[in-house]
Amino acid sequence: MTAPEDLKSCVGRTVTLKGSVYNIRKMSGFCFVLLRTGRHIFQCVCEERELADQLLEEACIKISARVMEEPRAKSGAELHITGIEVLSRPTAQMPIVMNRKKVEASLENRLDYRPLTLRNQRERAVFKLQEGLLRGIRRFLESEHFTEVHTPKIVREGAEGGANIFKLDYFGREAYLAQSPQFYKQMMVGVFERVYEVGPVFRAEKHDTARHLNEYTGVDFEMGYIEGFEELMDMETGMLRSAFAMLREEYGEELQLLEVALPEVGEIPRIKFSKAKSLVAEKVFAERTGLTEANASAAGKKPGRPAGADQAGGAPAFTRDSHDFEPEEERILSRIIMEKTGSEFVFVTHYPAAKRPFYVMEDPENPGETLSFDLIFRGLEITTGGQRIHDHKMQVEKMERLGMDVEDFESYLMIHKCGMPPHGGLGLGLERLTARLLGFENVRQASLFPRDINRLTP
Amino acid sequence: MTAPEDLKSCVGRTVTLKGSVYNIRKMSGFCFVLLRTGRHIFQCVCEERELADQLLEEACIKISARVMEEPRAKSGAELHITGIEVLSRPTAQMPIVMNRKKVEASLENRLDYRPLTLRNQRERAVFKLQEGLLRGIRRFLESEHFTEVHTPKIVREGAEGGANIFKLDYFGREAYLAQSPQFYKQMMVGVFERVYEVGPVFRAEKHDTARHLNEYTGVDFEMGYIEGFEELMDMETGMLRSAFAMLREEYGEELQLLEVALPEVGEIPRIKFSKAKSLVAEKVFAERTGLTEANASAAGKKPGRPAGADQAGGAPAFTRDSHDFEPEEERILSRIIMEKTGSEFVFVTHYPAAKRPFYVMEDPENPGETLSFDLIFRGLEITTGGQRIHDHKMQVEKMERLGMDVEDFESYLMIHKCGMPPHGGLGLGLERLTARLLGFENVRQASLFPRDINRLTP
Repeated sequence: MTAPEDLKSCVGRTVTLKGSVYNIRKMSGFCFVLLRTGRHIFQCVCEERELADQLLEEACIKISARVMEEPRAKSGAELHITGIEVLSRPTAQMPIVMNRKKVEASLENRLDYRPLTLRNQRERAVFKLQEGLLRGIRRFLESEHFTEVHTPKIVREGAEGGANIFKLDYFGREAYLAQSPQFYKQMMVGVFERVYEVGPVFRAEKHDTARHLNEYTGVDFEMGYIEGFEELMDMETGMLRSAFAMLREEYGEELQLLEVALPEVGEIPRIKFSKAKSLVAEKVFAERTGLTEANASAAGKKPGRPAGADQAGGAPAFTRDSHDFEPEEERILSRIIMEKTGSEFVFVTHYPAAKRPFYVMEDPENPGETLSFDLIFRGLEITTGGQRIHDHKMQVEKMERLGMDVEDFESYLMIHKCGMPPHGGLGLGLERLTARLLGFENVRQASLFPRDINRLTP
Repeated sequence: MTAPEDLKSCVGRTVTLKGSVYNIRKMSGFCFVLLRTGRHIFQCVCEERELADQLLEEACIKISARVMEEPRAKSGAELHITGIEVLSRPTAQMPIVMNRKKVEASLENRLDYRPLTLRNQRERAVFKLQEGLLRGIRRFLESEHFTEVHTPKIVREGAEGGANIFKLDYFGREAYLAQSPQFYKQMMVGVFERVYEVGPVFRAEKHDTARHLNEYTGVDFEMGYIEGFEELMDMETGMLRSAFAMLREEYGEELQLLEVALPEVGEIPRIKFSKAKSLVAEKVFAERTGLTEANASAAGKKPGRPAGADQAGGAPAFTRDSHDFEPEEERILSRIIMEKTGSEFVFVTHYPAAKRPFYVMEDPENPGETLSFDLIFRGLEITTGGQRIHDHKMQVEKMERLGMDVEDFESYLMIHKCGMPPHGGLGLGLERLTARLLGFENVRQASLFPRDINRLTP
């Protein structure tokens, strides 16, 4: 017997069960006991005073119980406890109430007591679903002949550049924590053609926002012999479908508990960054002025376009950066796409080269733009991906143009020098995907033990 | 078409295929070309001079080819190239020969050029098998209702203690890289009962040996409600069976290429540490003197027993540490067990408390010994595991006895205070398992991009 649904078939039998006492509700002459096991909560009845006296919340017990029919119970049956063996007893009361429907406390408080609050039925269901997403992702990638790899997290060079990198002392030498497995997964494309890795990614970002973690779980894949970067988006679409299908197949209990509406993943709309930027600006303009763009032109007004030249002209705060999106813009774009197409996902493509790393392939037809994309899900970027430069000369020239020291990247450039297929890939943040799926305001809610600028424990 | 074995069924047809030119062998009037794809090598024949001129080793190409019957080919068929499209070309020659049967170079050299040498058919097969081991492990753990978790690698406290810990600056505070997910997986036992994690483990060990890596892939599991630590060994036995079964089912090609003999995993013998220590000492004594223990007693000689008191008496170098094994002792023990039982695995149990971490449960019947074990496979320790202390009072007392500051472990001890089931778990080094399976002298051979005291690149 593993789930309460299976109880019905055991009516009349005596079973034994191990678990933690989640909740005790004393009634007159008997008590209700909720027993928490690895995935389920069982409703039990304890009628004998002597047995009930042994019960204590969060004690770990082994019970024997008779299964009785009970139409009022969700499972149609109830466990009547006939014997209790106490396996271990807590020595202190819970410092936070975690055995109600929800944990009613601030996020900071819930995180401070995370080892305990995760025992709450709803809190733990989040991470059961996270497991399911990853199982669905792995199932898909395996079926597409991706090989799983494990690449080092202590590295000599950071792939993403910038100041957002943790430094450490490696036997007297300076080393870094990997900001992504970028270089290594590209190297592995030369070996296995298609590879993926699931592992920690470290970003020393000083932002303290609801969207950032300083350590997160990256799901990265990289594939060779692509004919265009569209194939990468096709692959991610398949991957997401498989992830949600896995939840539908095997995680119904948690989906129901958290009242999750799984998104439909049809053909995900694709829109160029420049076009998306305009759409957002028009939408904002229209909402602020009550005018549509067409009306505005007629009225001699000009919507706040995102082009760089407009900046001085007082563009709205969230369009300040003409090469990237502000969080608010991502949310507006999601709303626009949802209204137009019904999709909760949107691929934004062709980001300006200025904001993408040195290894990203530029569009041969328009070198200021890159063959790259972000995937935005319910207003939040959850993936960055794109085609990479595979030609040695092109890569070295670009690095020199950017003022990089090519010699620092000797082992990385080996692969370009000695032959690489056209290739590309992406990185998906598992916590962000989980958080958007579950409608969380803060990505920390989808990390077991989040790390942020202020939080290093538990 | 994905494998050469499938070629036979395509005889007479024209196919297209993408891959890298692994090897070109020029004959008179034609050439043999080996085309490397993500997992396979295809033998092709190129008869047209014009086509052959386009070929270059490590170029990435797309070919069209007619499949012809060829009894001399392993697959029974051969590809006759009718068209070539060059997708990319290397700009330099390989700095190391990687397209022969083996890469004939020192290990250091092979590692220096790892992004390229991994393209060798045998080198990459190692990591395909490593993937298979992990797939088999995951399949087993999922079937046993373990939940996969992802815990932080940047931590405030090291679980294993000692000096072997990497420090980093975390926004002005001192932090560490996790030496194991120990505390976190224990916390998660209170949540999901059974959890596992596959992730990087960091050990700042200064040893430069064939057995150590400073970063490796840990496969950790932890389970609650155990009735004894024997259950942990049972679980690991099942896990290994599943891992090897997966290789047998889906990785026949790589097993054959590397001539791997999969070990039989029957009932793995279990032997107490103290008994194992004696057996080894007796074996060494017998081999050095040509005497058995019985003979020795008769002759008035005393075998070099490992007890501490013997140390001054000139025990052999490898029995210097009476609380642990020297590498040579593990090899000898493996030989003894192999001779006695035919098993290539042996669980050594009840290690002295002095050499085990503070969270390990001591044997109530013999407190100097712990309910812990190592698994030795072909002469090398690949796993350490054991039952943990779940009682708060017992844990705090032990920490105080060891002079530890209990306040430093506040969030960890929350779980003991608020109720934990009897539990235990283990950690397996994926590289060590792979290395012993493949008979490697050096564990670095089983790490894609190894980190050691001297090596931080590639």
